[in-house]
Amino acid sequence: MDCCFNYIGFVRRDDNSTSRKSIVKIEIKETYAEGLKDIEEFSHLIIIYHLHLADPNKDLKRIRGGVEVGVFATRSQHRPNSIGISVVELIKREGNVLYVKGINAFDGTPILDIKPYDEWDSVPNPKVPEWHKLNETI
Amino acid sequence: MDCCFNYIGFVRRDDNSTSRKSIVKIEIKETYAEGLKDIEEFSHLIIIYHLHLADPNKDLKRIRGGVEVGVFATRSQHRPNSIGISVVELIKREGNVLYVKGINAFDGTPILDIKPYDEWDSVPNPKVPEWHKLNETI
Repeated sequence: MDCCFNYIGFVRRDDNSTSRKSIVKIEIKETYAEGLKDIEEFSHLIIIYHLHLADPNKDLKRIRGGVEVGVFATRSQHRPNSIGISVVELIKREGNVLYVKGINAFDGTPILDIKPYDEWDSVPNPKVPEWHKLNETI
Repeated sequence: MDCCFNYIGFVRRDDNSTSRKSIVKIEIKETYAEGLKDIEEFSHLIIIYHLHLADPNKDLKRIRGGVEVGVFATRSQHRPNSIGISVVELIKREGNVLYVKGINAFDGTPILDIKPYDEWDSVPNPKVPEWHKLNETI
Protein backbone atom coordinates (compact mmCIF):
# COMPACT_ATOMS: atom_id res chain seq x y z
CA MET A 1 0.00 0.00 0.00
CA ASP A 2 1.16 3.54 -0.73
CA CYS A 3 0.03 5.45 2.37
CA CYS A 4 -1.46 4.70 5.78
CA PHE A 5 -3.45 6.69 8.30
CA ASN A 6 -4.59 6.56 11.93
CA TYR A 7 -8.17 7.02 13.10
CA ILE A 8 -8.68 10.32 14.92
CA GLY A 9 -12.18 9.50 16.18
CA PHE A 10 -15.52 7.84 15.45
CA VAL A 11 -19.12 8.57 14.43
CA ARG A 12 -21.51 7.99 17.35
CA ARG A 13 -25.22 7.75 16.58
CA ASP A 14 -28.13 6.02 18.26
CA ASP A 15 -30.05 5.08 15.13
CA ASN A 16 -28.99 2.18 12.97
CA SER A 17 -29.10 4.28 9.80
CA THR A 18 -27.03 6.59 7.64
CA SER A 19 -29.72 9.29 7.53
CA ARG A 20 -28.47 12.81 6.92
CA LYS A 21 -31.39 14.19 8.90
CA SER A 22 -30.14 13.07 12.33
CA ILE A 23 -27.90 15.08 14.59
CA VAL A 24 -24.89 12.83 15.03
CA LYS A 25 -21.89 12.95 17.33
CA ILE A 26 -18.31 12.96 16.06
CA GLU A 27 -16.16 11.89 18.99
CA ILE A 28 -12.50 12.83 18.58
CA LYS A 29 -9.85 10.92 20.54
CA GLU A 30 -8.39 12.88 23.46
CA THR A 31 -4.96 12.80 21.78
CA TYR A 32 -6.32 14.93 18.94
CA ALA A 33 -8.90 17.03 20.82
CA GLU A 34 -6.65 20.10 21.00
CA GLY A 35 -6.87 20.27 17.19
CA LEU A 36 -10.57 21.25 17.45
CA LYS A 37 -9.94 24.63 19.13
CA ASP A 38 -12.09 27.37 17.57
CA ILE A 39 -13.63 25.01 14.98
CA GLU A 40 -17.05 26.20 16.21
CA GLU A 41 -16.43 29.51 14.44
CA PHE A 42 -17.33 27.73 11.20
CA SER A 43 -20.92 26.91 10.28
CA HIS A 44 -20.03 23.87 8.16
CA LEU A 45 -17.34 21.19 8.10
CA ILE A 46 -16.08 18.49 5.76
CA ILE A 47 -15.84 15.15 7.52
CA ILE A 48 -13.49 12.61 5.93
CA TYR A 49 -13.90 9.02 7.08
CA HIS A 50 -12.92 5.43 6.45
CA LEU A 51 -15.72 3.42 4.80
CA HIS A 52 -14.65 0.49 6.93
CA LEU A 53 -17.59 -1.75 5.96
CA ALA A 54 -17.21 -1.23 2.22
CA ASP A 55 -15.65 -3.61 -0.30
CA PRO A 56 -12.67 -1.95 -2.05
CA ASN A 57 -12.26 -4.88 -4.43
CA LYS A 58 -15.53 -4.58 -6.35
CA ASP A 59 -15.21 -3.89 -10.08
CA LEU A 60 -14.93 -0.33 -11.39
CA LYS A 61 -18.45 -0.10 -12.85
CA ARG A 62 -21.76 0.70 -11.19
CA ILE A 63 -25.31 0.64 -12.58
CA ARG A 64 -27.10 3.99 -12.49
CA GLY A 65 -30.46 4.44 -14.21
CA GLY A 66 -29.90 1.15 -16.06
CA VAL A 67 -26.56 2.32 -17.48
CA GLU A 68 -23.04 1.21 -16.58
CA VAL A 69 -20.99 4.16 -15.32
CA GLY A 70 -17.56 4.37 -13.69
CA VAL A 71 -17.26 4.17 -9.92
CA PHE A 72 -15.57 7.61 -9.80
CA ALA A 73 -18.72 9.06 -11.39
CA THR A 74 -20.67 7.83 -8.33
CA ARG A 75 -20.68 8.27 -4.57
CA SER A 76 -20.77 4.48 -4.09
CA GLN A 77 -19.17 3.36 -0.83
CA HIS A 78 -17.49 0.50 -2.70
CA ARG A 79 -14.51 2.21 -4.35
CA PRO A 80 -10.80 1.41 -4.73
CA ASN A 81 -9.90 3.52 -1.69
CA SER A 82 -12.63 3.32 0.97
CA ILE A 83 -12.71 7.04 1.75
CA GLY A 84 -16.01 8.81 2.38
CA ILE A 85 -16.74 12.49 2.80
CA SER A 86 -19.77 14.42 4.02
CA VAL A 87 -20.41 18.14 4.22
CA VAL A 88 -22.14 18.78 7.55
CA GLU A 89 -23.63 21.62 9.52
CA LEU A 90 -21.85 22.07 12.84
CA ILE A 91 -24.51 22.38 15.53
CA LYS A 92 -22.19 22.68 18.54
CA ARG A 93 -18.95 21.47 20.08
CA GLU A 94 -18.67 20.05 23.60
CA GLY A 95 -14.98 19.46 24.28
CA ASN A 96 -13.84 16.63 22.02
CA VAL A 97 -17.35 15.95 20.67
CA LEU A 98 -18.87 17.67 17.64
CA TYR A 99 -22.62 17.58 17.05
CA VAL A 100 -23.22 17.66 13.30
CA LYS A 101 -26.07 17.31 10.84
CA GLY A 102 -25.74 15.91 7.33
CA ILE A 103 -23.44 12.90 7.62
CA ASN A 104 -24.47 9.71 5.85
CA ALA A 105 -22.25 7.29 7.72
CA PHE A 106 -23.03 4.47 10.15
CA ASP A 107 -22.43 4.46 13.90
CA GLY A 108 -18.82 3.49 14.55
CA THR A 109 -17.43 4.84 11.28
CA PRO A 110 -13.79 5.85 11.86
CA ILE A 111 -12.85 9.49 11.20
CA LEU A 112 -9.70 10.38 9.24
CA ASP A 113 -9.86 14.19 9.06
CA ILE A 114 -12.03 17.23 9.66
CA LYS A 115 -11.72 20.40 7.62
CA PRO A 116 -13.56 23.71 7.80
CA TYR A 117 -15.86 24.32 4.83
CA ASP A 118 -15.11 27.58 3.04
CA GLU A 119 -16.07 29.54 -0.08
CA TRP A 120 -13.76 27.42 -2.30
CA ASP A 121 -15.90 24.37 -1.50
CA SER A 122 -19.14 26.08 -2.46
CA VAL A 123 -20.33 25.66 -6.07
CA PRO A 124 -23.72 27.34 -6.58
CA ASN A 125 -25.30 25.22 -9.32
CA PRO A 126 -23.28 22.08 -9.98
CA LYS A 127 -24.34 20.16 -13.08
CA VAL A 128 -25.17 16.51 -12.37
CA PRO A 129 -26.66 13.97 -14.79
CA GLU A 130 -30.23 12.72 -14.39
CA TRP A 131 -29.08 9.21 -13.45
CA HIS A 132 -27.18 10.61 -10.46
CA LYS A 133 -30.40 12.02 -9.02
CA LEU A 134 -31.90 8.53 -8.83
CA ASN A 135 -29.76 8.09 -5.75
CA GLU A 136 -28.83 4.45 -6.13
CA THR A 137 -26.03 4.06 -3.62
CA ILE A 138 -24.66 0.58 -4.27
CA MET B 1 -1.64 2.42 11.35
CA ASP B 2 -5.38 1.83 11.08
CA CYS B 3 -5.97 1.89 7.32
CA CYS B 4 -3.92 2.00 4.13
CA PHE B 5 -4.61 3.06 0.56
CA ASN B 6 -3.12 2.81 -2.93
CA TYR B 7 -2.50 5.73 -5.25
CA ILE B 8 -4.91 5.78 -8.20
CA GLY B 9 -3.08 8.52 -10.12
CA PHE B 10 -1.13 11.78 -9.95
CA VAL B 11 -1.46 15.54 -10.44
CA ARG B 12 0.46 16.67 -13.54
CA ARG B 13 1.15 20.38 -13.96
CA ASP B 14 3.86 22.35 -15.73
CA ASP B 15 4.10 25.21 -13.26
CA ASN B 16 5.91 24.82 -9.97
CA SER B 17 2.98 26.20 -8.00
CA THR B 18 -0.24 25.22 -6.27
CA SER B 19 -2.27 27.94 -8.00
CA ARG B 20 -5.97 27.24 -8.34
CA LYS B 21 -6.09 29.33 -11.51
CA SER B 22 -4.19 26.86 -13.71
CA ILE B 23 -5.80 24.09 -15.70
CA VAL B 24 -4.13 20.98 -14.33
CA LYS B 25 -4.09 17.35 -15.45
CA ILE B 26 -5.18 14.50 -13.20
CA GLU B 27 -3.66 11.37 -14.71
CA ILE B 28 -5.36 8.19 -13.54
CA LYS B 29 -3.47 4.87 -13.72
CA GLU B 30 -4.65 2.60 -16.54
CA THR B 31 -5.74 0.01 -13.95
CA TYR B 32 -8.38 2.43 -12.65
CA ALA B 33 -9.23 4.30 -15.89
CA GLU B 34 -12.47 2.36 -16.44
CA GLY B 35 -13.79 3.94 -13.23
CA LEU B 36 -13.92 7.35 -14.97
CA LYS B 37 -16.66 6.39 -17.46
CA ASP B 38 -19.28 9.15 -17.77
CA ILE B 39 -17.62 11.36 -15.14
CA GLU B 40 -17.68 14.17 -17.72
CA GLU B 41 -21.44 14.46 -17.18
CA PHE B 42 -20.64 16.33 -13.96
CA SER B 43 -19.48 19.95 -13.99
CA HIS B 44 -17.48 19.69 -10.75
CA LEU B 45 -15.53 17.03 -8.88
CA ILE B 46 -13.99 16.53 -5.46
CA ILE B 47 -10.37 15.44 -5.72
CA ILE B 48 -8.94 13.66 -2.67
CA TYR B 49 -5.17 13.38 -2.52
CA HIS B 50 -2.22 12.46 -0.34
CA LEU B 51 -0.35 15.52 0.95
CA HIS B 52 2.86 13.55 0.47
CA LEU B 53 5.19 16.49 1.20
CA ALA B 54 3.45 17.53 4.42
CA ASP B 55 4.58 16.83 7.98
CA PRO B 56 1.94 14.79 9.87
CA ASN B 57 3.83 15.09 13.14
CA LYS B 58 3.56 18.84 13.67
CA ASP B 59 1.68 19.93 16.80
CA LEU B 60 -2.10 20.39 16.76
CA LYS B 61 -2.11 24.21 16.84
CA ARG B 62 -1.70 26.75 14.05
CA ILE B 63 -1.40 30.52 14.18
CA ARG B 64 -4.14 32.39 12.33
CA GLY B 65 -4.46 36.17 12.61
CA GLY B 66 -2.11 36.09 15.60
CA VAL B 67 -4.27 33.59 17.49
CA GLU B 68 -3.62 29.90 18.20
CA VAL B 69 -6.35 27.74 16.68
CA GLY B 70 -6.69 23.97 16.26
CA VAL B 71 -5.38 22.31 13.11
CA PHE B 72 -8.87 20.94 12.29
CA ALA B 73 -10.11 24.54 12.17
CA THR B 74 -7.63 25.16 9.32
CA ARG B 75 -6.86 23.84 5.86
CA SER B 76 -3.17 23.50 6.78
CA GLN B 77 -1.40 20.76 4.82
CA HIS B 78 0.35 19.68 8.04
CA ARG B 79 -2.33 17.61 9.80
CA PRO B 80 -2.42 14.25 11.59
CA ASN B 81 -3.58 12.46 8.44
CA SER B 82 -2.04 14.03 5.33
CA ILE B 83 -5.23 14.07 3.26
CA GLY B 84 -6.06 17.02 1.02
CA ILE B 85 -9.22 17.79 -0.90
CA SER B 86 -10.05 20.30 -3.62
CA VAL B 87 -13.32 21.08 -5.35
CA VAL B 88 -12.54 21.52 -9.04
CA GLU B 89 -14.27 22.39 -12.27
CA LEU B 90 -13.99 19.56 -14.78
CA ILE B 91 -12.92 21.10 -18.10
CA LYS B 92 -12.69 17.85 -20.11
CA ARG B 93 -11.70 14.20 -19.99
CA GLU B 94 -9.32 12.59 -22.49
CA GLY B 95 -9.27 8.86 -21.71
CA ASN B 96 -7.56 8.43 -18.34
CA VAL B 97 -6.69 12.15 -18.04
CA LEU B 98 -8.95 14.76 -16.46
CA TYR B 99 -8.33 18.47 -17.11
CA VAL B 100 -9.48 20.38 -14.03
CA LYS B 101 -9.39 23.90 -12.64
CA GLY B 102 -9.24 24.78 -8.96
CA ILE B 103 -6.80 22.31 -7.40
CA ASN B 104 -4.18 23.72 -5.02
CA ALA B 105 -1.76 20.79 -5.08
CA PHE B 106 1.77 20.46 -6.44
CA ASP B 107 2.83 18.54 -9.54
CA GLY B 108 3.26 14.87 -8.61
CA THR B 109 0.72 14.86 -5.79
CA PRO B 110 -0.75 11.33 -5.52
CA ILE B 111 -4.51 10.94 -5.96
CA LEU B 112 -6.56 8.78 -3.57
CA ASP B 113 -10.12 9.25 -4.83
CA ILE B 114 -12.35 11.27 -7.14
CA LYS B 115 -16.00 11.92 -6.39
CA PRO B 116 -18.68 13.78 -8.33
CA TYR B 117 -19.74 17.05 -6.68
CA ASP B 118 -23.48 17.21 -6.05
CA GLU B 119 -26.10 19.36 -4.33
CA TRP B 120 -25.26 17.88 -0.88
CA ASP B 121 -21.78 19.37 -1.15
CA SER B 122 -23.04 22.85 -1.94
CA VAL B 123 -23.56 25.23 1.00
CA PRO B 124 -24.65 28.68 -0.22
CA ASN B 125 -23.23 31.01 2.44
CA PRO B 126 -20.90 29.14 4.80
CA LYS B 127 -19.89 31.13 7.86
CA VAL B 128 -16.13 31.40 8.30
CA PRO B 129 -14.23 33.48 10.88
CA GLU B 130 -12.28 36.57 9.85
CA TRP B 131 -8.94 34.92 10.65
CA HIS B 132 -9.66 32.17 8.13
CA LYS B 133 -9.90 34.73 5.34
CA LEU B 134 -6.30 35.82 5.96
CA ASN B 135 -5.36 32.66 4.10
CA GLU B 136 -2.26 31.71 6.03
CA THR B 137 -1.61 28.19 4.85
CA ILE B 138 1.19 26.96 7.13
